[in-house]
Amino acid sequence: MQLAVNRDVADYVIAPDPAAPRLTRAVDGVDHDGAPARIRVVEERPLTIFLNGQEIVTAMTIADYPEYLALGFLRNQRMLRDDDEITGVDYDDDLETVVVRTARQTSYEDKLRRKTRTSGCAVGTVFGDMMEGLDQVRLPAVQVRSSWLYDLAARINRTPSLYLEAGAIHGTVLCRENRPLVYMEDVGRHNAVDKIAGWMLHTGEGAADKILYTTGRLTSEMVIKTAMMGIPVLASRSGFTAWGVEIARQVGLTVIGRMRGRRFVCLSGAERLLRDVDPGAVEDEDHRHRRKGARA
Amino acid sequence: MQLAVNRDVADYVIAPDPAAPRLTRAVDGVDHDGAPARIRVVEERPLTIFLNGQEIVTAMTIADYPEYLALGFLRNQRMLRDDDEITGVDYDDDLETVVVRTARQTSYEDKLRRKTRTSGCAVGTVFGDMMEGLDQVRLPAVQVRSSWLYDLAARINRTPSLYLEAGAIHGTVLCRENRPLVYMEDVGRHNAVDKIAGWMLHTGEGAADKILYTTGRLTSEMVIKTAMMGIPVLASRSGFTAWGVEIARQVGLTVIGRMRGRRFVCLSGAERLLRDVDPGAVEDEDHRHRRKGARA
Repeated sequence: MQLAVNRDVADYVIAPDPAAPRLTRAVDGVDHDGAPARIRVVEERPLTIFLNGQEIVTAMTIADYPEYLALGFLRNQRMLRDDDEITGVDYDDDLETVVVRTARQTSYEDKLRRKTRTSGCAVGTVFGDMMEGLDQVRLPAVQVRSSWLYDLAARINRTPSLYLEAGAIHGTVLCRENRPLVYMEDVGRHNAVDKIAGWMLHTGEGAADKILYTTGRLTSEMVIKTAMMGIPVLASRSGFTAWGVEIARQVGLTVIGRMRGRRFVCLSGAERLLRDVDPGAVEDEDHRHRRKGARA
Repeated sequence: MQLAVNRDVADYVIAPDPAAPRLTRAVDGVDHDGAPARIRVVEERPLTIFLNGQEIVTAMTIADYPEYLALGFLRNQRMLRDDDEITGVDYDDDLETVVVRTARQTSYEDKLRRKTRTSGCAVGTVFGDMMEGLDQVRLPAVQVRSSWLYDLAARINRTPSLYLEAGAIHGTVLCRENRPLVYMEDVGRHNAVDKIAGWMLHTGEGAADKILYTTGRLTSEMVIKTAMMGIPVLASRSGFTAWGVEIARQVGLTVIGRMRGRRFVCLSGAERLLRDVDPGAVEDEDHRHRRKGARA
């Protein structure tokens, strides 16, 4: 287990724990030379989420934070409201279920019937509903400094993670200014984001002063999710989609993508981006720290 | 538009068409130096799929092959059977809908109510159903040669694509031996795979002699999809999950991952893998051809 002896990891409220035995398994095969190869691969498990006795979905997850995943999923699907009184969150490891209970009675038959398959998965949301909810969203106009982005990228890249260890995983990190706070990983990118949302709901942590950093692409779905979580800045190594950019501009989300080394592109909110450090002074990306190519 | 003057692209039945105007849009922003930056980003659009008058799902897609996407999606969700007589596939560009019609009457109310959110999205499949369907799957025991894998990787990496042009996209290629045949891309990896399934259904092309090559991770979902399509070999640059490997071994799917340059790892079907070329003779990965880091 990684001891928090260096500043990079010490900053985290929640850091990845790649050495946790449950999260990976050693599997034997052969390599390109025909030699025996033993590699660690990520363990995904089904987790069935219930809301007040109603089965909602089964998610494939690394099951490190099942309660946060359940809370965040339900919140991001708008089955949980900000003002809901949560009376219980019960995880059963044997049954691989989480039951979230609220004081309010809930019934989501309608929501469960219609769904949108987006580039990831937006189970439970209707496309029209999704766009409608956005009409009312206007994010706070916060400034973001390029020095923060460079610091975050450097720290996050140096943080030991399942991504670096075993690939096949997505990471998303909730940050404040230049400090990474909560680093969640999972086989599905939307799980990682939902776990962050669940943590925020559970701790009552605010969104307006946060930056969401992700390994993933800045699709419309990712942009919508970030905006619905109330986070005003979204950053990634990866690229954009046109609709993602459009929606970001509509809701006032600052989006920075294609972040590698000293380079980045800002396609929304450039007026809120303060370049407070000379890119020439930023260390270019070190191959040793380059994230392994665990795509998709 | 790419002219098929070189052998790499000439092999393809369907090759990517990154210059197709509908697929990308130029968007303006600023870069790390504060200079104006104009970049091409992928256009995603909603496509609503109907089966015989019943609305099934709305998928976000680059909309290059809407008919194949609809056919393949329905087939992979097992709402279309191999023996179904398809009486029509009607795409309406203005309404952004595709209607697939069959001689058989269909009603999938039940399937639409329960769903599994996997690491991507398995809309319409129940987790239990998914695993049950697999019990009956045994793929043909075909040999795969390492020379084919090296050839495929090299050719695919050299093929002009949206992935190389604009990032934020996933690619999956249907191959036979060392020849790439059908290269589909989309914002969602499952769309890319579904488009291949739709093409196979439409053309009647068989699966038993094919290899599926993907940029994406070899999760349980990807393995299941490949197996249900009847394709006996799955290859990727990316990593594995433990369950993906387990399922692959159960159904007899040969899985090769972490393919970079001369290196790879085979975690299922090593006994069907013939190493017919010395890895030392294989050109190591050229940075110029390294796929841009469009993750997730």
